[in-house]
Amino acid sequence: MATTYQGDEALNRLLEEDKSAFDAAAVRDLIAGVLAAPAADPGDSWIVLAAPRAGNELTGQLAALKEEIASALGDPAPWSPDRLADLRAFLKDTGLNGIVVPRSDEHLGEYVAKRSERLAWATGFTGSAGLAVILAERAALFVDGRYTLQAAQEVDAALFEILPLAADNGDWPPGLWISEQLSEGAKLGYDPWLHTSRQVSQLGRAAEKAGAELTACPKNPIDAVWKDQPPPPLAPVFPLADDFTGSPSAEKRAGLAATLKQDGEEAAVLSAPDSIAWLLNIRGGDVPFSPLPLSFAILNGDATVDLFIDGRKLTPEAAASLGDGVRIATPDAFGAALDRLGKDAKTVRVDSGLSPAWISDRLKEAEARLKTGDDPCQRPKACKNETELDGMRAAHRRDGAALTRFLAWLERAVADGGISEIDAADQLEALRRQGDHFRGLSFPTISGFGPNGAIVHYRVTSASNRILEPASLYLVDSGAQYLDGTTDVTRTVAIGDPNLEMRDRFTRVLKGHIALASAIFPKGTSGSQLDVLARRALWEAGLDYAHGTGHGVGSFLGVHEGPQRISKLPNRVALEQGMVVSVEPGYYKEGAYGIRIENLVAVIPASVAGEAETEMLAFEPLTLAPIDLALVEPGLLDAAERDWLNDYHARVADEITPLVDDETATWLKLATRPLEDPFKD
Amino acid sequence: MATTYQGDEALNRLLEEDKSAFDAAAVRDLIAGVLAAPAADPGDSWIVLAAPRAGNELTGQLAALKEEIASALGDPAPWSPDRLADLRAFLKDTGLNGIVVPRSDEHLGEYVAKRSERLAWATGFTGSAGLAVILAERAALFVDGRYTLQAAQEVDAALFEILPLAADNGDWPPGLWISEQLSEGAKLGYDPWLHTSRQVSQLGRAAEKAGAELTACPKNPIDAVWKDQPPPPLAPVFPLADDFTGSPSAEKRAGLAATLKQDGEEAAVLSAPDSIAWLLNIRGGDVPFSPLPLSFAILNGDATVDLFIDGRKLTPEAAASLGDGVRIATPDAFGAALDRLGKDAKTVRVDSGLSPAWISDRLKEAEARLKTGDDPCQRPKACKNETELDGMRAAHRRDGAALTRFLAWLERAVADGGISEIDAADQLEALRRQGDHFRGLSFPTISGFGPNGAIVHYRVTSASNRILEPASLYLVDSGAQYLDGTTDVTRTVAIGDPNLEMRDRFTRVLKGHIALASAIFPKGTSGSQLDVLARRALWEAGLDYAHGTGHGVGSFLGVHEGPQRISKLPNRVALEQGMVVSVEPGYYKEGAYGIRIENLVAVIPASVAGEAETEMLAFEPLTLAPIDLALVEPGLLDAAERDWLNDYHARVADEITPLVDDETATWLKLATRPLEDPFKD
Repeated sequence: MATTYQGDEALNRLLEEDKSAFDAAAVRDLIAGVLAAPAADPGDSWIVLAAPRAGNELTGQLAALKEEIASALGDPAPWSPDRLADLRAFLKDTGLNGIVVPRSDEHLGEYVAKRSERLAWATGFTGSAGLAVILAERAALFVDGRYTLQAAQEVDAALFEILPLAADNGDWPPGLWISEQLSEGAKLGYDPWLHTSRQVSQLGRAAEKAGAELTACPKNPIDAVWKDQPPPPLAPVFPLADDFTGSPSAEKRAGLAATLKQDGEEAAVLSAPDSIAWLLNIRGGDVPFSPLPLSFAILNGDATVDLFIDGRKLTPEAAASLGDGVRIATPDAFGAALDRLGKDAKTVRVDSGLSPAWISDRLKEAEARLKTGDDPCQRPKACKNETELDGMRAAHRRDGAALTRFLAWLERAVADGGISEIDAADQLEALRRQGDHFRGLSFPTISGFGPNGAIVHYRVTSASNRILEPASLYLVDSGAQYLDGTTDVTRTVAIGDPNLEMRDRFTRVLKGHIALASAIFPKGTSGSQLDVLARRALWEAGLDYAHGTGHGVGSFLGVHEGPQRISKLPNRVALEQGMVVSVEPGYYKEGAYGIRIENLVAVIPASVAGEAETEMLAFEPLTLAPIDLALVEPGLLDAAERDWLNDYHARVADEITPLVDDETATWLKLATRPLEDPFKD
Repeated sequence: MATTYQGDEALNRLLEEDKSAFDAAAVRDLIAGVLAAPAADPGDSWIVLAAPRAGNELTGQLAALKEEIASALGDPAPWSPDRLADLRAFLKDTGLNGIVVPRSDEHLGEYVAKRSERLAWATGFTGSAGLAVILAERAALFVDGRYTLQAAQEVDAALFEILPLAADNGDWPPGLWISEQLSEGAKLGYDPWLHTSRQVSQLGRAAEKAGAELTACPKNPIDAVWKDQPPPPLAPVFPLADDFTGSPSAEKRAGLAATLKQDGEEAAVLSAPDSIAWLLNIRGGDVPFSPLPLSFAILNGDATVDLFIDGRKLTPEAAASLGDGVRIATPDAFGAALDRLGKDAKTVRVDSGLSPAWISDRLKEAEARLKTGDDPCQRPKACKNETELDGMRAAHRRDGAALTRFLAWLERAVADGGISEIDAADQLEALRRQGDHFRGLSFPTISGFGPNGAIVHYRVTSASNRILEPASLYLVDSGAQYLDGTTDVTRTVAIGDPNLEMRDRFTRVLKGHIALASAIFPKGTSGSQLDVLARRALWEAGLDYAHGTGHGVGSFLGVHEGPQRISKLPNRVALEQGMVVSVEPGYYKEGAYGIRIENLVAVIPASVAGEAETEMLAFEPLTLAPIDLALVEPGLLDAAERDWLNDYHARVADEITPLVDDETATWLKLATRPLEDPFKD
């Protein structure tokens, strides 16, 4: 239906006929915002924003106009050194000797909108974590270990020193660099919207060491010189039904208001988009991989919310769903609202670890009574209710069916030969896409064969793409967003005959997975207390893995969420009933292969033989997909471990078989066959 | 040799003859200090302090004089309400509305000298932890769960509210009580020598909430009104030979000076007696159970030490051993020395968690550059060198022999009947006393039968004393100080036939002990990461224990030492090679019985099959004594656990049999018989 755009005059007529509040100029603005969001899925859901009652002709014209604007925009320009020159000229004009450029937006989340890719704009580096410091004469880009190679490829080494983001001895290399490179009396600019207060203090101390000064920029200097910077994204915001959320927003707001009251607080400022989406039962698409609308909110003691959001992105259903308890204002009005909290001498909770320094600074200036505390949505959001858990279970059945079909296909396709990492990732996505409620991937698929599998955060490119061929291991870590839940699963598959070492390592990772997944633990236990269970079998062989063991996962929200985690690092957050976490021990042999076995699990009450003296919790596996038996060394499993694996596989077969084609079902039957005791005669 | 004291005149003559620097009056002062220390062992080692070359006659007279003074002193007076009245009158006179009375001394250690038992003096409560707040009209005593009963017995409830020291919700009850009870404008006194800076801040916030003020007292108000307060203790300080320490003090001092230099510091203030004892290779006896001289010290960047100590307690050997690098000054000179650090604008490290606020306050006033950091002795002291480890091993063989003889005796004695908890503890101490290098117990023996065993910190009294009779469990947690090492061991023994539940619980505790004791873990792992290993088998049955799993142990120093520990609580301190920790999971059934299996273990390099990819560590059991097989349910152990137990028992039999009498050896052979696989036919 490739309609040609008929011009603004014709569009204005159609808009008027179909009772749109927009004229062509306003529609063009809207489309600019829509195009600043990641590609929506389905692609034309935005049209309702311009004209809720659009007929076929208007719909066609709007789609055509969007196409026209998109092709006029073209691909983003590649990085050029002119950008650095422009930025430095601007800094000089504004009396700054340098600027800090983090890879974060005003919401400090994992994924950012196109307009917030300031680090990539300034340096050329497109990784998901990093920090640049740009001074008049020198500049440095700090990246973590997983991005050293990529940064070297993408960034002009004549202009940027590439340095590690963290040091083993606990030093903070950007701070050291700043202390060394800044001259006395220099002014180093930063954008208080893009750092927490703690990060600002850290930067401040570094500048102070050099006798220099850290200065908050009233406007981000990159925004000032980035000529074709995309506008704020305008992905449609839609309501998520109570069937999925299990709790109306009014109920959540009343609950949190009671919490605030108990803590002697009269309001809480929310800047984390997943908190706001959870609280208001809305979803959107302003950033990749997470269904998040970007906005700010103030939760008031009377259970009402002031939501600072571009109203154009609210679908009529979303606007209606928010109801009387939620007042909509433009993002511009946010600062004044904080000032009002101060003027009214309110006691206001701010999560200093999650929110930008700008918010605390403004509240302090306004003389509000600032109380730092946890974002009040974080804990209740992490503890899924029964509806959410049922949704997660349903989403995991569909996701497991897609993954099982993929694994069955992979075995056949690899035998035929020529399957690459990209082919495999595409096939898996295509199979997932067929599932109900599918809303896109929950993160970029890690599809790594052989040595690429040993790169923990590997992301296949056409340059790195490998063919899956005997004999090594293929590691695929992937997940999807569904209206009823978010998934994240890793399976490692033998391609050809695995050698003894691979089977030994895989079985140790599996033992760790089982030990953690089958743990029974008292209420109050944190993830860090349990972490060792996943590592013990590796440690016994002098092996380990250099990443955390588990992260929280949202309900059709971020695939990484707090506050709980399972990790070597100390953490006092207890694992509570309803929390969903990943269990993902691994083993990586550099230059050879990688192994990871990841299921999501939900925290549930434990049943123990006899009477428990204290309230006990356990994990329920949510993920349903076979674990490659070709990689299991049965002699390394004890009876309880073997029982766990057999029970798990029986459950996978039970739940997934009805959802897959016959060919896959036949494959699955073999893939989930029970292991026998190797020592039994 | 009950000589009668012949009078001061005769003594003066003898002192002069034997070239003592003391006259009778000085000797009387010295003896007052000697009597203010716990009973020395051996009892007359102090005589060398008065007269290094004392002949028999002088020795006899000095001993007789000490006896005379001791009997004149008599027993300490019992608590009387007059004390409270005197204290309140003094507070009123000095313009204070109240005072905080902690159970700590100027060194903030676990055990305190008699003169520092201010909490007991003021309240009557003799427990080892607690805090009182005494206001003009009201007073409260805060104790933890283990002391609730004892406090109720010892303290006049009409005068003191007895309240918990900690709250489950993280509140600090003393702070809440202070906030509620203090009137606006009131002044609450505290002794800055007896609290860390953090504790002072906590108290200050509580007072502030009431609109009151926290005021540092220039002199402790209790000292002002405690008429017969003992003087500072003067137990003889003696050198510990390099044969025991493995490292001359000069070497240690040079090492620490290098550390300070590296950290940009020019001095460190030491207030922890075990740090100073370790650094200077001296021991003493000013407090019970730990061989500690009380003193303060400044470690200088040039590797010299200024030691602030009452020189009268230094034996000639100790004085000689300290050498040129250690300058001796009186405790009174300590403040002026801190002032000098300030005057010289030195950068000074202070451990704010271990040292009293007084020190930081004084340094700040003096404008020294204060750097808070760890007491530099703590980590090297915790990591025992090979000589110290060999000493620990030797001490544990002797200690294990004594404990084995005790266990063999216990079986016979219980069969004869009438053995009480006190009888058992006395017998165990008597057997230990026969060992070489014995220098007393390392803590009060916990000797608990049946329900008393379920009281984690039980200390038997004549009122609580139970007879050991079938059928229940007897728990004995005990340890000793030897010149070459410190021990701490718990064994639980079936008295009569244990029931199935007891055997199940004991075996689960044993499984936890084995899991932790046999752990292999990468360098950098902390005790909190390993804690779960000790609890898992209990958790699986819905059970747990409400105490930590392991603590550090000194080398002929404190039986509890940091910085490492094994516990549910987060802790980033890595377990390092040479550290000694206890492994002591337990299970307690209130009103019925208690179980604990405790060995000390040393951290050693691990050997793994194949090549370890990362440096791995493991534990070597130091404690050598049988674990009661009557309580082991073999069907609950897996093959690896059974092997561990059999290997451990084989080692116990090997090392202990040559050290015990034939009767014990026969008993030990049976007690360490190998368990067979119960499922093997």
